[in-house]
Amino acid sequence: MLVNGKHYRTVWVDNGEVRMIEQNRLPFSFEVFQAKSLEETCRAIRDMVVRGAGAIGATAGFAMAQHFLNPSGRTAEEAADMVRGTRPTAQNLFYAVDRVCRAAENSSQPQKAALEASQAIADEDAEACRLIGMHAGSLVAGRPRVMTHCNAGWLAFVDWGSALSPVYMAVRDGAKPFVYVSETGPRGQGARLTAWELQQERVEHAVIADNASGFFLNKGEVDVIITGADRIARNGDTANKIGTYMKAVLAKELGIPFYIAAPTSTIDFRCGSATDIPIEFRGEEEVLWKAGVNEEGVPGKILVAAPGSHAKNPAFDVTPAKYITGIITEMGIFKPGEIAGLK
Amino acid sequence: MLVNGKHYRTVWVDNGEVRMIEQNRLPFSFEVFQAKSLEETCRAIRDMVVRGAGAIGATAGFAMAQHFLNPSGRTAEEAADMVRGTRPTAQNLFYAVDRVCRAAENSSQPQKAALEASQAIADEDAEACRLIGMHAGSLVAGRPRVMTHCNAGWLAFVDWGSALSPVYMAVRDGAKPFVYVSETGPRGQGARLTAWELQQERVEHAVIADNASGFFLNKGEVDVIITGADRIARNGDTANKIGTYMKAVLAKELGIPFYIAAPTSTIDFRCGSATDIPIEFRGEEEVLWKAGVNEEGVPGKILVAAPGSHAKNPAFDVTPAKYITGIITEMGIFKPGEIAGLK
Repeated sequence: MLVNGKHYRTVWVDNGEVRMIEQNRLPFSFEVFQAKSLEETCRAIRDMVVRGAGAIGATAGFAMAQHFLNPSGRTAEEAADMVRGTRPTAQNLFYAVDRVCRAAENSSQPQKAALEASQAIADEDAEACRLIGMHAGSLVAGRPRVMTHCNAGWLAFVDWGSALSPVYMAVRDGAKPFVYVSETGPRGQGARLTAWELQQERVEHAVIADNASGFFLNKGEVDVIITGADRIARNGDTANKIGTYMKAVLAKELGIPFYIAAPTSTIDFRCGSATDIPIEFRGEEEVLWKAGVNEEGVPGKILVAAPGSHAKNPAFDVTPAKYITGIITEMGIFKPGEIAGLK
Repeated sequence: MLVNGKHYRTVWVDNGEVRMIEQNRLPFSFEVFQAKSLEETCRAIRDMVVRGAGAIGATAGFAMAQHFLNPSGRTAEEAADMVRGTRPTAQNLFYAVDRVCRAAENSSQPQKAALEASQAIADEDAEACRLIGMHAGSLVAGRPRVMTHCNAGWLAFVDWGSALSPVYMAVRDGAKPFVYVSETGPRGQGARLTAWELQQERVEHAVIADNASGFFLNKGEVDVIITGADRIARNGDTANKIGTYMKAVLAKELGIPFYIAAPTSTIDFRCGSATDIPIEFRGEEEVLWKAGVNEEGVPGKILVAAPGSHAKNPAFDVTPAKYITGIITEMGIFKPGEIAGLK
């Protein structure tokens, strides 16, 4: 996708170096982070230079390829464990590590095989996201008013994104969408990352407080809601960033279509329904403090709550299948009840 | 109510000076603002040293009393216009100004009459809030888990508050409530003011991101939601801080009681329903920037959105009567459909 008019992927390999957009600095500054070795790439994943399932998976694959390109005395298994230890809950990361290892082991040219496998993982992620945009084109044709939540754009994948791919695709087909960008508290990925992406792609948009999403839905100012997913259960119940569930309930109440957009790799077939999905609680400081830049442009954070009060901070919620109009994947758009059949 | 164990009202008169808790400094520092003259009290209202309908009304009454106590060459009508010009949409302000003027005009001792009338306005506000707490005691007895939104506590009135009065009353009757405090973006009055009040009253509570309210409601961790109101229409439709509507819809969907708490002075009988209530849009900087104190305790603000992106900032939304279980007033608890009969 575009940054200052130039095409970028979120992560790529150049001459043995893994390069990635430094997402901790966005949206206040655009920098490309260069990781020269397996160790540096692992540190980048751990420090959240990249985030989002697809982008993490591709970076993990590239990290494993670096192991084979520049042997450091570690065994492949030791290198794999190092990558696996960076973000222990990211499913795509485990998949990528195993696939690159297997390709190298089964080849007489392990360096070439590892690099090709890691590149294939990145390309497949970008292609799945492109297909999501293709399949959902009709949902956002014309002058649609779209609401989204958090960042399920290209920064969370290798290219295109999931929830935002239909928007980017529609723009290329001449549509003039308007996107309501929920701030997405407590960490503000909507206001920070989604708004930045939409600016770069010249898509008209407005940031709104999470509290204001009901207002605009009720006013008839939203044609469709599209969000991403962190994990989809066999019955279609979907875990995603905290706040997704409220939007889905409001959409159902008001008769507004609510779509989840995610590659089929997000479906966890071992998971029967919402009750099997554990919800991560994160540190209270994410709620009590806000990060950004001050009036001089210097990064910092400020306390926005009564000193001494505590917070509870669930990072995700589960939207029951009954509130979901459809799930947009690289294989097409499915009803939540049809997901089980994709195995 | 209590601050550091000592009883305070939000605003009071002492020897001709109007004193009020400086709410712009809360929750990071507790200061009492002293306004020696009509002019200083007007400036305090305009600068939001006080906020909330009840507190603004009482302060306006005291400001008018100051006019009569310390004549400045202005006519009573000129003084009244000065007070009316501070916050043009606050209904309680107009009522207080007129009542104090009338009391002074109709008395042979205008100074005494004005002071007594202004004190009566403050006392009646505190008493209405106390009665709200009394009537709603049964809703929060035992170990209730209460969710609230924004600040409808005593800082918004003269004492007790509306939505929080039942909580404070229940604590005095031996209840052990737990309060979920929605941050209340964009301006964070929940995290700042409600959390501070609850700390002072030693009520157990947790700040949550606005996005997390659906999560806790869905988990069965909330017994009742109580919020305040900015304006109640004849049919029970209620305008309140942005985000109230979403909570009410979720509550209905999940079978959780949702109450509005407000003195009957909040009912606008000229207003038939939601469609008659205009919604104020405020400046986008409230969404894009967050105010607080930095790690050194210095007040400041930071940009939390992509530089260059714009925001839309509706300050209130309307909760249709069908989502409201009951409206708690100083006269008792009513169904939304019974409100019209209170005229």
